[in-house]
Amino acid sequence: MKNQHLERFEIRLSGLGGQGILTLGKVMGSGLALGQGYNVTQTQSYGPEARGGASRSDLVISSEKISYPKAESVDLLIALSQEACNMYYRNLKPGGLLMIESDLVKQPPVNMFIGLPFTYLAKEKIGLVQTMNTIVLGAAAFLLPFAEQRVIRKNLEEILPAKIVAINVKAFNLGYKEAKKNFGDPETLWKKNSVVVEEDDEDSI
Amino acid sequence: MKNQHLERFEIRLSGLGGQGILTLGKVMGSGLALGQGYNVTQTQSYGPEARGGASRSDLVISSEKISYPKAESVDLLIALSQEACNMYYRNLKPGGLLMIESDLVKQPPVNMFIGLPFTYLAKEKIGLVQTMNTIVLGAAAFLLPFAEQRVIRKNLEEILPAKIVAINVKAFNLGYKEAKKNFGDPETLWKKNSVVVEEDDEDSI
Repeated sequence: MKNQHLERFEIRLSGLGGQGILTLGKVMGSGLALGQGYNVTQTQSYGPEARGGASRSDLVISSEKISYPKAESVDLLIALSQEACNMYYRNLKPGGLLMIESDLVKQPPVNMFIGLPFTYLAKEKIGLVQTMNTIVLGAAAFLLPFAEQRVIRKNLEEILPAKIVAINVKAFNLGYKEAKKNFGDPETLWKKNSVVVEEDDEDSI
Repeated sequence: MKNQHLERFEIRLSGLGGQGILTLGKVMGSGLALGQGYNVTQTQSYGPEARGGASRSDLVISSEKISYPKAESVDLLIALSQEACNMYYRNLKPGGLLMIESDLVKQPPVNMFIGLPFTYLAKEKIGLVQTMNTIVLGAAAFLLPFAEQRVIRKNLEEILPAKIVAINVKAFNLGYKEAKKNFGDPETLWKKNSVVVEEDDEDSI
């Protein structure tokens, strides 16, 4: 599954200001690009559109040149707040996957999703709430069929200021481990657990 | 001229890795958005496309919702390396403005441009080469007809780590001052000095 040809894969990272969404996008994007040779664009929005405490970053990953950098048909939606989840789940494409912060998204708008209490894990297991986004990165590294854990972690080590590397590697490993424990085999997950955004109420089994 | 309605204004920041292009995009984008109420998208590219030491960030600024975040018809091209200048001057729209690092872009591909020796200024006048991107920000704040110097500087103070604020404010003010001294009235500049990307050899006077 690794280093496969990717036509276009879209990730939307969303949540509240202060959760480190933009840094998460940067670290994830550069990890996938520099270590694995994909083209990646990362787009973030500022201003009235992005206000109300909301924060969002889109990543588009491709083996090809990326002509349109905005995510519109999202393969993986990461929603770290209820508001973000409500706002963006409609952008998930059929077969897309929704990963939530399970303590903050109390009412997922769809039945199929995966989640971890990222904030709790950062506070209780790492002892630093600011590492929450790196735990999310670790979980995403587990989920993404084309991501290599080792490469993403190495890039993380290179990109962060020296004095915060150790605690973030710990957070990354925790996120990976918790995802592995709770989500099961990612390949199966992409097949089974993916969201079906239904046009009507009929179940598509 | 301030807080005017903007349909769409595109800035491309380009240069070498290590020049702080992405941080420049972030600081400029958030300054224009948070202080002045514009919608701003900032897109950066990683990967093979962005390699060879090249670095690039696109900003799109608008009073309206931004549906396409990639800069394709650039109003202001900032080129901090010869390679970036060669690569992107064709994306300047008629009436667009080219600002270069005058020591690094030895052969501007068009006749009309403005430039400052940003790296030299950072080293000699500020004493820290890493402040180069903030000097560029100051010059851009002078140039952009809708940017307010005070607002951009205030945002810079808020967004940077406390211990590097003072030196960066100094760098910002230097960039603004040098631009004012060397570039003349910005309104005239946008009218007179703007690039005409010619379809043929005929002068369009």
